[in-house]
Amino acid sequence: MMSSKKIRLGLIGGGSGSFISVVHRIAAYMGERYELVGGVFSADFDSGKRFAESLNLDLSRTYPDLESFVRGESALPVPERIEVVSILTPNFLHYPMAKKVISAGFNVVCEKPMTFTVAEALDIERLASDNNIVFGLAHTYTGYPMVRQMREMIAAGDIGKIQKIDAQYYQGWINPFIHDAEKRAGVWRLDPQMSGQSCCIGDVGIHAFNLVEYISGLEVATVLADIDTLYEDNLLDVDGTALFRTGNGVRGLIRASQIATGEENNISVAIYGDKGALKWQQEAPTELHYLTDDQPRRIYKPGNSYNSEFAQDSTKIAPGHPEGLFDAMANLYSGVAKAVRNENFHPGAFPGAADGVRGMKFVEAVLASNRGGQVWVDL
Amino acid sequence: MMSSKKIRLGLIGGGSGSFISVVHRIAAYMGERYELVGGVFSADFDSGKRFAESLNLDLSRTYPDLESFVRGESALPVPERIEVVSILTPNFLHYPMAKKVISAGFNVVCEKPMTFTVAEALDIERLASDNNIVFGLAHTYTGYPMVRQMREMIAAGDIGKIQKIDAQYYQGWINPFIHDAEKRAGVWRLDPQMSGQSCCIGDVGIHAFNLVEYISGLEVATVLADIDTLYEDNLLDVDGTALFRTGNGVRGLIRASQIATGEENNISVAIYGDKGALKWQQEAPTELHYLTDDQPRRIYKPGNSYNSEFAQDSTKIAPGHPEGLFDAMANLYSGVAKAVRNENFHPGAFPGAADGVRGMKFVEAVLASNRGGQVWVDL
Amino acid sequence: MMSSKKIRLGLIGGGSGSFISVVHRIAAYMGERYELVGGVFSADFDSGKRFAESLNLDLSRTYPDLESFVRGESALPVPERIEVVSILTPNFLHYPMAKKVISAGFNVVCEKPMTFTVAEALDIERLASDNNIVFGLAHTYTGYPMVRQMREMIAAGDIGKIQKIDAQYYQGWINPFIHDAEKRAGVWRLDPQMSGQSCCIGDVGIHAFNLVEYISGLEVATVLADIDTLYEDNLLDVDGTALFRTGNGVRGLIRASQIATGEENNISVAIYGDKGALKWQQEAPTELHYLTDDQPRRIYKPGNSYNSEFAQDSTKIAPGHPEGLFDAMANLYSGVAKAVRNENFHPGAFPGAADGVRGMKFVEAVLASNRGGQVWVDL
Amino acid sequence: MMSSKKIRLGLIGGGSGSFISVVHRIAAYMGERYELVGGVFSADFDSGKRFAESLNLDLSRTYPDLESFVRGESALPVPERIEVVSILTPNFLHYPMAKKVISAGFNVVCEKPMTFTVAEALDIERLASDNNIVFGLAHTYTGYPMVRQMREMIAAGDIGKIQKIDAQYYQGWINPFIHDAEKRAGVWRLDPQMSGQSCCIGDVGIHAFNLVEYISGLEVATVLADIDTLYEDNLLDVDGTALFRTGNGVRGLIRASQIATGEENNISVAIYGDKGALKWQQEAPTELHYLTDDQPRRIYKPGNSYNSEFAQDSTKIAPGHPEGLFDAMANLYSGVAKAVRNENFHPGAFPGAADGVRGMKFVEAVLASNRGGQVWVDL
Repeated sequence: MMSSKKIRLGLIGGGSGSFISVVHRIAAYMGERYELVGGVFSADFDSGKRFAESLNLDLSRTYPDLESFVRGESALPVPERIEVVSILTPNFLHYPMAKKVISAGFNVVCEKPMTFTVAEALDIERLASDNNIVFGLAHTYTGYPMVRQMREMIAAGDIGKIQKIDAQYYQGWINPFIHDAEKRAGVWRLDPQMSGQSCCIGDVGIHAFNLVEYISGLEVATVLADIDTLYEDNLLDVDGTALFRTGNGVRGLIRASQIATGEENNISVAIYGDKGALKWQQEAPTELHYLTDDQPRRIYKPGNSYNSEFAQDSTKIAPGHPEGLFDAMANLYSGVAKAVRNENFHPGAFPGAADGVRGMKFVEAVLASNRGGQVWVDL
Repeated sequence: MMSSKKIRLGLIGGGSGSFISVVHRIAAYMGERYELVGGVFSADFDSGKRFAESLNLDLSRTYPDLESFVRGESALPVPERIEVVSILTPNFLHYPMAKKVISAGFNVVCEKPMTFTVAEALDIERLASDNNIVFGLAHTYTGYPMVRQMREMIAAGDIGKIQKIDAQYYQGWINPFIHDAEKRAGVWRLDPQMSGQSCCIGDVGIHAFNLVEYISGLEVATVLADIDTLYEDNLLDVDGTALFRTGNGVRGLIRASQIATGEENNISVAIYGDKGALKWQQEAPTELHYLTDDQPRRIYKPGNSYNSEFAQDSTKIAPGHPEGLFDAMANLYSGVAKAVRNENFHPGAFPGAADGVRGMKFVEAVLASNRGGQVWVDL
Repeated sequence: MMSSKKIRLGLIGGGSGSFISVVHRIAAYMGERYELVGGVFSADFDSGKRFAESLNLDLSRTYPDLESFVRGESALPVPERIEVVSILTPNFLHYPMAKKVISAGFNVVCEKPMTFTVAEALDIERLASDNNIVFGLAHTYTGYPMVRQMREMIAAGDIGKIQKIDAQYYQGWINPFIHDAEKRAGVWRLDPQMSGQSCCIGDVGIHAFNLVEYISGLEVATVLADIDTLYEDNLLDVDGTALFRTGNGVRGLIRASQIATGEENNISVAIYGDKGALKWQQEAPTELHYLTDDQPRRIYKPGNSYNSEFAQDSTKIAPGHPEGLFDAMANLYSGVAKAVRNENFHPGAFPGAADGVRGMKFVEAVLASNRGGQVWVDL
Repeated sequence: MMSSKKIRLGLIGGGSGSFISVVHRIAAYMGERYELVGGVFSADFDSGKRFAESLNLDLSRTYPDLESFVRGESALPVPERIEVVSILTPNFLHYPMAKKVISAGFNVVCEKPMTFTVAEALDIERLASDNNIVFGLAHTYTGYPMVRQMREMIAAGDIGKIQKIDAQYYQGWINPFIHDAEKRAGVWRLDPQMSGQSCCIGDVGIHAFNLVEYISGLEVATVLADIDTLYEDNLLDVDGTALFRTGNGVRGLIRASQIATGEENNISVAIYGDKGALKWQQEAPTELHYLTDDQPRRIYKPGNSYNSEFAQDSTKIAPGHPEGLFDAMANLYSGVAKAVRNENFHPGAFPGAADGVRGMKFVEAVLASNRGGQVWVDL
């Protein structure tokens, strides 16, 4: 009954109580290009079915596990088959599940970190290419209009040659748990089996790293990192700083924490060039600060015609009407939709598997640097 | 095929190019309780059909005009019939269209101003009551979590007895048009036939008025207003200030402008009591400032457990992840959904016809005050 | 022993415990053009002498009362005589004391309000002119570099023709006292004998009024005001709003309060023109916001070469090193010094007796408007 | 003629055109405890005398060089002799001049960096102790009331055990010069003969380091630093980051730059503990942010009774009346005055020679770390 125009979306994970699933679903709805059709909403099939019912989904498209999902959907005629699969499971399932759905020819939106290791990430990148599928990675913050404006202004030379980069991602949410071994045990992100090799760097530092490369257009070549587990019997990092140098010799740093008590989601990026600088903070996402040596500071805001076309296309609303995180993610979904439909899209429209590889290289380099006693390690 | 659980939504107006329609549609999608089914998307049926196609809607539910909409939908069995109609037309059509759909028994979400006159507003209020329908009015800003927190804190006595109220709604968007008669002629909000008795007070001042009553829990009893058309040959106000007193004698003021050059959507509300004060600004919607005589200023932010239940229920996301205007409107739609489904809902969940009556009383009192040479006029 | 170059300064009032005296003394020291020589520091001579000793002043220049001050100083040779007298007494003494010292030929820096009535203010203005003395009025906020920059930009046409003015001066300091008659009795500013006809308008509203005229270059022609004593048995206003129109028809408003609970010294001025707008807030005094229809908002900060010469001359320090209230007052003292020494000075260098007359006209017009039931009253 | 109560102040350096001298002189005047008597204002005696005349100083106390200053002042009877000498010369003269005046028994206020090397710094510390003189070091930012409040709150346990420290000092002033060898040659701070071993770390990083130790009460034990000269033919650092660990194992970092284009004087300190966090920024010096896991953010502002006694004593003015950099320095001068007069003073009242030693240890450790290829170096 539905026309073929809407993209059929499936979810893997992201059932009842999943915060990140709310973000993905809303993001998919916002641009009116996706239709949520089915998925594997929970490891517990009954729970998954109840969730599907709560969303009025067709239970015949609700599957108990990934295998039956792939089998069931692949059996459907192409015009009915789910086209994009969003992988919203805990970290340790990203890689195996992505591998399966890519191999089966589904396009993917994957939560980060893409994998546990660089080797796995390269595998995903190769598979996505071999299967000719669209692969989007949920580095949501790249979807903010002012982040995109920052990228465009740098590409246009508005700050000249970059000479210093400083990115931060500070949260405090682990503080209430970290000091008590029992409470700590209840935090899955601190469990290497669930979370991977890193907690803080892999969960938030990787976002800051991604923003640095996304915005600056430069590649981080080498890092020196000092990370902190705070307690000896805590296995994963909850804080860390990585000094870095880009391929062309620019120095910078990435600061990440989950024990910055009281911080909510304090991401900031400052990039200084020889002609100017740009600064942005996620908790005040509608303001982009442009500094120069000799002019008053300028504040760019979304929705205005002075912004780049890419930034303008990333805003749905008149100036002064705040958009937020859902809107940022919606811009990623919109980019994926264009790619799936073979429409033109901006190279910055959504991060992909290559960004996932870069991210894992960063995480592994940071860990290696720290293990080595804070030494320089190339990505 | 769709289960009966989702609320079937229709739009009147809000077709191609409508900014406000984007806000309503996204708001409806966000809570996953509405399904857009059909409507009258444009005065031009072809355009309306193209719009419906672009959204993959069933063209059999796309109607050329309101009469055919009412006839067509009413002919459908109740479980298929559209349940809520959002009226998104230009101002002059709000009243006649709302009247028709209410009389036909449809629930309504109506853009503001609800009507052109108090008499019409009272008519809508009576009709909605007589037809026992749910009527929501799009005073979107009441949907912000921190606006709701402000209301709850005042109700809980956190600022004591209110002694001063100051609300502002400053925009600058008319400045580029107002100084040139030709450009001005292209602005429908400046045309009394389209816009009503007032431009600035009716379009933005009314929001500030609504926030004052919504947040404070007080009723404005009398106003004294000075409004400005800027040019003699401009028929409608583009700026104005209304001094007011509430029924219990509190003094306050509402400041509105559309010629505050460079302002985007600068709404603010400050309410001072004998024990404390609360201040909020729409362009930084995630911060609520709580001031007292002798304690450090406190900044309340959404998503935190220190907020009231109502404010918490109005946030979908963890602290530090900004929500914006769509989310505010989504909270109104969520409230309407609960009312339509006979679920419990908070009295502040969405503004209704009574608020529309209050708004029109405010507009008429302001205009009368100004016409009389800035004299006190009771609402 | 001292050379004749430094200006000999005397104080009337401003002895031990006087907050405002600290501001004046520091302001005088800052520019290194004044030498504090003596004065009448207290109504209690012993207390005044102790104060003089604490500052290592020559007790022979410490006088028991104004008469002996005038007699004593006038008897000294001109090169030793005090040249500028700062009048820092409670309000009710401003007029009689200013009258005496002006008549005796001393230059004056006078705290505001200059007098209790317009008639007295005109008397001071005439006397100052007749005696050919320099008269500075302590409208301190005109001394902030960014206030001066705002004035200069408006004069240079940067915002075009002014079309809207909004000024605010909100404090909350009376809240802890106002609700209890006994506590209230201890507040001299609420006593008409000490404070004059008005508390809130005369103390803080007058500053906002002064800033409006100082910055805009326009004259307020007529006002309509609603003021509030909060309690019937409280004699003086603690809150009030004045709508106004300038001579050339610009509408604006001045909002003042001392019961805006929790507000410290929240002064703001926003001036909107047809080409742009400028906004400034006293509690963030180093930021001047420049808004236009179509460009990013610009933030002007002190000490930068993009500022006007007048603003640059009003800063002593490199950009990013905050100056504050003392520095603003120091700029007034510096202006008075130039006038006393017959050096060139900017017409905005310090407010004078004419500003005092304007201020009293504003206060009287506001009070008359309110007494008349909120009617328009010309200044 | 002057009583003995005021402290007689002399300056070494700081004549015509010296920005830092303005800060010191105003700071000395503000508390009304110093009298500027004489000094060596310039390497050019004629220029020094003209400067003295411009300030109406007694030319008999204006000296051509330090030797004659020491000889001349030492020959005066103690009650007339200069008591405190402020050393305001370029960096390379701090050590030799401080050595001479300390050895001659004068109390000192010295600009930072105190010396070029740790060895020299230890020499100064020893000399100051041996000669029993008061030695103040111009780490001006420790004088801000909210910095002091931050220190007191941490000492009181308000944030619990510290677990993360992040300090920044970003300026952009070298950007206009650094890219052109000729322009660069005109910047004395880039000349090792004038400036010492380091430009950025020694000039601004050292302030951030000092704030970290001053506020946290912890000692930095070891650093790992990456510094940048930007150009190979530029001899001194203009940017650098130092990771550090305190003696009790807290990780932190200090970020410094003079090529952060467009930054004016952007100093910030954030200290996170297990019970809360405190954040402060120099360009908005009147706001101290207090964050916790579960309460609204609190903003502390100067002049309020909720502040510590030390912070309150560091403010001269009512809340909401901004103080700035001069006021911070004035608090240091006030502390030195108390020490000179053997009055009680708070241990945080002014930094001393021990802080100078710490600072030089930091600079040398940073440089050694960088030379070694970014390795850990103990202080």
